[in-house]
Amino acid sequence: MRIHIQNQDDDPPYLFTRAQWEAAVARAPGIGAGHVVSFGTTEQDFVTAMADAEALITNNAAIIGLFPVAAPQLELMFIALAGLDGLAPYDWLPPGVILLNNSGAHSDKAGEFAIMAVLMLANRIPRFVTSQRAGLWRKEWGTTLRGRRVTIVGLGGLGGAAAMQCARFGMHVAGVRTTAVPHQHCAEVIATENLDDVLEQTEFLVLACPLTPATHNLLDRRRLALLPRGAGVVNIARGALLDQNALCDLLDADRLGGAVLDVFTHEPIPDGDRLWSTPNLIVSPHTSADDPASYNAASLHIFFDNLRALHEGRPLPNLFDPARGY
Amino acid sequence: MRIHIQNQDDDPPYLFTRAQWEAAVARAPGIGAGHVVSFGTTEQDFVTAMADAEALITNNAAIIGLFPVAAPQLELMFIALAGLDGLAPYDWLPPGVILLNNSGAHSDKAGEFAIMAVLMLANRIPRFVTSQRAGLWRKEWGTTLRGRRVTIVGLGGLGGAAAMQCARFGMHVAGVRTTAVPHQHCAEVIATENLDDVLEQTEFLVLACPLTPATHNLLDRRRLALLPRGAGVVNIARGALLDQNALCDLLDADRLGGAVLDVFTHEPIPDGDRLWSTPNLIVSPHTSADDPASYNAASLHIFFDNLRALHEGRPLPNLFDPARGY
Repeated sequence: MRIHIQNQDDDPPYLFTRAQWEAAVARAPGIGAGHVVSFGTTEQDFVTAMADAEALITNNAAIIGLFPVAAPQLELMFIALAGLDGLAPYDWLPPGVILLNNSGAHSDKAGEFAIMAVLMLANRIPRFVTSQRAGLWRKEWGTTLRGRRVTIVGLGGLGGAAAMQCARFGMHVAGVRTTAVPHQHCAEVIATENLDDVLEQTEFLVLACPLTPATHNLLDRRRLALLPRGAGVVNIARGALLDQNALCDLLDADRLGGAVLDVFTHEPIPDGDRLWSTPNLIVSPHTSADDPASYNAASLHIFFDNLRALHEGRPLPNLFDPARGY
Repeated sequence: MRIHIQNQDDDPPYLFTRAQWEAAVARAPGIGAGHVVSFGTTEQDFVTAMADAEALITNNAAIIGLFPVAAPQLELMFIALAGLDGLAPYDWLPPGVILLNNSGAHSDKAGEFAIMAVLMLANRIPRFVTSQRAGLWRKEWGTTLRGRRVTIVGLGGLGGAAAMQCARFGMHVAGVRTTAVPHQHCAEVIATENLDDVLEQTEFLVLACPLTPATHNLLDRRRLALLPRGAGVVNIARGALLDQNALCDLLDADRLGGAVLDVFTHEPIPDGDRLWSTPNLIVSPHTSADDPASYNAASLHIFFDNLRALHEGRPLPNLFDPARGY
């Protein structure tokens, strides 16, 4: 296959290199060998390659702006980003071209971040950090995780990994997704439309779902207020899933116990924004799912998995549905 | 048996109650039933009870100062504290009285705190918290734990639980203890006298050993400097195990990647101490092993385990050796 890899030249930790490609081929020679692969970073590289490329692999959201571009052979686009919500609406997608997302590449790292955040909330770390900022030695008692109730919204790559970790620590895991289909790491699964029912018993809330029109502002002020006093909130998905101001109000009032947020409605967070100084809130700069040491290898593994499915006529594990938005 | 429980009246989260005692007896009726138990908080309560008590259970370090007290029937003292270093030297111990420590009661909580701290270091949380304090959005890349090298000093209740958690995340676990006896959760065990040899390859250092004359200032300035650039340090044991000033110097110079400390040479940390503001250092106020929700139940479980061993003539699992200090 004629494959082009378009890099994002301003993001060196994520550059796909020929060495990485060859290492991935060595791990999957049956499906990986024999392709003609080019690498590019500039617009000119991209336009030139599209003249004959059959597949495009990219983590460069900006090049989407170059469509429609002459790409007469293009069959397959693999976008190596965590979520494709930034590329909506999807009217740039050339007719008949298959679009693949990168679901799964971030699972290990995001799952570890999620259980870390839950452990931090159970151990009161956001509160200790706030005390430390004020130079105050203020003891508060934490607990172990066994038997504690966590609700995880979204059970895809990120949420599934979070559920696995939480279950491993003996937590009672409630999963929330579009339809209430059982999940191997969840004690119960609730349909998104019934989210209200589970919030009152939620000690820890983990947001790990895609941002779509259906999930935008899902945790609005009313729903956040349903969480019990002292509950903790983790967001590793997208900032616009929750009402940040309502969350900060609940933290200011000491109604919620703490929050660990990796994503925000505006990134970088503006200077002087209340997020920087809200008590018992820890800001992580949108890095929870990122692991440059393993990310490209994981992405190429996923690409080959889908290529194999395509050759064998099986459903594509990472087929992106523009209508659903994930 | 005539048992007296002396509480610490200023520490309500840790009060032993009659209800807790009865619940513990219900879980271990064979060894727990039939004892005559009294509860006290004042010095007078203590002196009165010692007139006929055969066993003393206490988390009140201050009453040790009342020895020698008339305690003609006393056979057994169970001190429900995490470490007995604060009670040294042990010349107050009446001749012939068995002293039991509480090793194991803190394991679950301390193990979860330890893996949380290691995950925080791997995910750069101490650095993000420092950036947040300055209102700075500064991305740094973390990694998953698989294959990373952690060195755990001390393999008792705390260190053993930390080793179990780290191994479960696929880390390479090196344990350090007095003699290099293998441990089920460690890939290698090093004798304390060879600690230098392992420090250079240590990405995460977890201190979890008792404070004794042999471990005082074990991580002095010279040894801390052996850690590789970017390494992380966790202390859940005792502050005096390491040279705090040397650690802060290495953090100020960005030689170490971060630290999560739960214990300090002076507690509470004095006003204006550099610990409050050293970059990439997270202060937890000596709560890592504490879990009031389960602590007394765990302590009474340990007490009954030892009582059973005593009745059956087996070695006591929690026998404290004043000569070794643990």
